Amino acid sequence: MSEPLPAPSGVITLLTDFGLSDPFVGVMTGVLLSRFPGARVVDLCHGMRPQAVGEAAFWLERCYFWFPEGTVHVAVVDPGVGSERGVLAAAIAGHYFLLPDNGLLGTRLLEAPGARVLAVDVPKLGLAPASRTFHGRDVFAPLAAGLASGERRFESLGVPTRALPCCLPAPQRTATGASGEVVCVDRFGNLLTNLDEALAESTGARQVRVAGHSLRWLRTYADAEPGELLALVNAFGVIEIALRDGSAEHHLGVTRGAAVELGA
Amino acid sequence: MSEPLPAPSGVITLLTDFGLSDPFVGVMTGVLLSRFPGARVVDLCHGMRPQAVGEAAFWLERCYFWFPEGTVHVAVVDPGVGSERGVLAAAIAGHYFLLPDNGLLGTRLLEAPGARVLAVDVPKLGLAPASRTFHGRDVFAPLAAGLASGERRFESLGVPTRALPCCLPAPQRTATGASGEVVCVDRFGNLLTNLDEALAESTGARQVRVAGHSLRWLRTYADAEPGELLALVNAFGVIEIALRDGSAEHHLGVTRGAAVELGA
Amino acid sequence: MSEPLPAPSGVITLLTDFGLSDPFVGVMTGVLLSRFPGARVVDLCHGMRPQAVGEAAFWLERCYFWFPEGTVHVAVVDPGVGSERGVLAAAIAGHYFLLPDNGLLGTRLLEAPGARVLAVDVPKLGLAPASRTFHGRDVFAPLAAGLASGERRFESLGVPTRALPCCLPAPQRTATGASGEVVCVDRFGNLLTNLDEALAESTGARQVRVAGHSLRWLRTYADAEPGELLALVNAFGVIEIALRDGSAEHHLGVTRGAAVELGA
Repeated sequence: MSEPLPAPSGVITLLTDFGLSDPFVGVMTGVLLSRFPGARVVDLCHGMRPQAVGEAAFWLERCYFWFPEGTVHVAVVDPGVGSERGVLAAAIAGHYFLLPDNGLLGTRLLEAPGARVLAVDVPKLGLAPASRTFHGRDVFAPLAAGLASGERRFESLGVPTRALPCCLPAPQRTATGASGEVVCVDRFGNLLTNLDEALAESTGARQVRVAGHSLRWLRTYADAEPGELLALVNAFGVIEIALRDGSAEHHLGVTRGAAVELGA
Repeated sequence: MSEPLPAPSGVITLLTDFGLSDPFVGVMTGVLLSRFPGARVVDLCHGMRPQAVGEAAFWLERCYFWFPEGTVHVAVVDPGVGSERGVLAAAIAGHYFLLPDNGLLGTRLLEAPGARVLAVDVPKLGLAPASRTFHGRDVFAPLAAGLASGERRFESLGVPTRALPCCLPAPQRTATGASGEVVCVDRFGNLLTNLDEALAESTGARQVRVAGHSLRWLRTYADAEPGELLALVNAFGVIEIALRDGSAEHHLGVTRGAAVELGA
Repeated sequence: MSEPLPAPSGVITLLTDFGLSDPFVGVMTGVLLSRFPGARVVDLCHGMRPQAVGEAAFWLERCYFWFPEGTVHVAVVDPGVGSERGVLAAAIAGHYFLLPDNGLLGTRLLEAPGARVLAVDVPKLGLAPASRTFHGRDVFAPLAAGLASGERRFESLGVPTRALPCCLPAPQRTATGASGEVVCVDRFGNLLTNLDEALAESTGARQVRVAGHSLRWLRTYADAEPGELLALVNAFGVIEIALRDGSAEHHLGVTRGAAVELGA
C-alpha cells in the first residue's frame, strides 16, 4: 500500500543551475503565475554549478522537507535537454517532485517508504514543448502549475517507472571508518561531504582527515580556536569541514571531489 | 482604434542592472508592498550588466509575454537618472511597461499594433522624487504600485509621446544572408545574437559564422557532438551559438558585440 | 511610555550574508511558509560580505522604513552562531526586528524614541535549535513566523535588555569638518560612507577628500562630466563617492575602510 497523496500546498520550489544573471528563472515564474495565479513560488536555489546534477541531488534530498507538505519541487539541472531523456513526477514523503530522469532523485528519496515515481508522457499531456532548449519554461513549469493548482492529478501524469540511479557518489565503509568526498562547497568555503551523520556514528570514528590534515570533530564553529580547521555535523546532517573565521576551501586548496576519510 | 486596456493582473515584474549584492531590489519591493499590499512582485532579472540598456531591451521584448495579461513590467537600466531624461508608461499587447525613455523599449514592442506610449509627468502625479539617484524606488515603484493596484489609470499617467528609438543594434541583410552581433552571453557561455528566427529563415541561409568558425545549425544542444560548437534557434527566438557541454564564450574568446554572419 | 506596538503586516524581510549560491535562503523561506502560510517573504538582501556585521547594520537601519509598518525584519550575519551570543527581538519605529546580539542594531535604531529591545529566551520558547550552525532556519525563521502571523506576541519573546553597541564605525568631527570612512561599496563601484547628510550639513563643509583627491559635491551623477569623480548625498542619506559612467572603486583603488574627509 502506498501512502495517500497530500493535498497540494500551493507552494512551488525551483532548484536549478540557471543562475540569476539571465531572466530564465523570472520567465519560469511568469509561466507559473500565468497558469496558476495563486502559486507561491520559492527560489530554493539557482546557484547549482552548471550541469552539476549530483550537487542538485544532494540539496534536493536534504532540503525538501523544510517546506509545507504538498509542496511541488521542480528541479532542473538538465544537460540532456532536448534529447530523449525522460521526465519524472514523484510523490515521496508528502511532497511532489518534477525533474528530468538523469540521477537527480537522491537515494534518500528513492528509498523512502511508499515512494511513487512516474514517467511523464509529455506529448500526451498536451505539453509538446515550445522549445528544445528550455524545458524549465515549456515542460516543467506547466506541469508544476497544473499539479500545484490541483488541475492535474498526480496519477494522471504518467505511468509507474524506475528512476535512473542517483548520481551522487556513495561513501564506502573502510576497516576503521568510512571514505567519502566533498560534494559541494558553500559560500563560506565550508566543504560539505557525502558522509552522513548516521553513517559516521555507526563507524564509531572520531577523526576526520582531508588533504593530509587530521581535524578535531566539534559541535559548532565557535568551539574551534580562531583560524582552526574543524569538522562537524552540519545543519543538513552531513560531515562538514570548516575553518573558524575563514574559508576551508581556500585554506586547504581542495574543492569538490576531494577525498575525506573517517577513522579511529 | 487602439485596443482596450487590460485589467491589471496584480503582477509586477522588475528588470534592472541593480544586481543582488545590495538591498536596492529589496527596498523597491518594500515600496511596492507598502503602496499595494496585494502586489505579486517577480524579479524578472537584476543581472543586466551595469548601464547596458540594449541588453535589457533585448530581454524585455522577448520575455514580457510569458507573464499574465495585465502585468506591469518595470525596467530600470538608467544611466541618465537624475538628468532630464523622460519617464515612459506604455500599454502594448496586453501588458503595461514603466521605464526611462532611453531606448529600453525594443522595436518589437514599439511596432506592435495598437502600442500606446505616454510621457509621464512625474511632478504632476505628486511623485517629486525623494532622491536624485534612485528613481527605481522613488518614481518607478510608486507608479507601478498605482497602476497594478488599479488606483491609477493608465491614461492618467501622461500624454502620448514617441519613445526614443530602441538602442538594440539592428541586423543587416547581406547578399547571401544577414549580418548581426552577439547581444548577450548567458550563464552557460551561450552567445545570444540579434539574428531573429524569422529573419534567418527569410534569408534561406544555413551557415552561421563567428570568429572564423563555420557552425552546424542544429535543433538542440544534444544534436551536437560533445565539445562541438553549434548554432540553433533558442527558446527566445534568436540564433544562439553554443558549445555542447561547455562555454562557447570561453572556447571562442568572443563576447558581446562580436560579429555573427548568416550565409549560404 | 513606549509607543503602541504595530499590528503585524504579514511581511517578513531577510537580510543575510548567506548569498544565493546555496539553498540556505530557500530553506529559511520554507520554514516561514510551513509555519505561516500567509507570509509574504521579501529578500531584502543576501549579499552582505561573509560575517560583515557592520555592513548589515548600515543597510538595516537605512532600509527598514521603506516596508509597511508592522513588518518583521530578520537579519542574520552571525559569526557567533552556536556560541553563547544572545538573540534579540526589537520593536522600533513601527517595525519589528529579530537578530543576533552582536552589534547588528544600528545607532539610529537603538536611539529611536520608544525603542524596545528584548533578550529572547530561545529554550523557554520551545525553540531549542535543531542545529548549532544554522540559526537562521532553526531559531530566527520560527520566531519570525510566530511574530508575523500574530501567533506570538512581541512581549512574550523575552525580557527587556540592552543590545550590544552597534559595530558601525562612528564618524568624528574635525576642526574644519568631519572624518569618516567607506562602509560599503555597491554593485556600480560607488563608495558609501558613514558620513550622514545631517552631519555633513552641520559642518558647513563643501569639500570631500578621498585617496588624495578633492571632489566636487554635486546633486546627481548626471551633473558631473563623463569620467569625473564626484561626491553626492545618496538615496540612503549618506555621502557617496561615485565616478560618472564608471566605478569609483576601480578608479581610486580603494575599498571598505578607506578614510573620507569632509573639509572647508
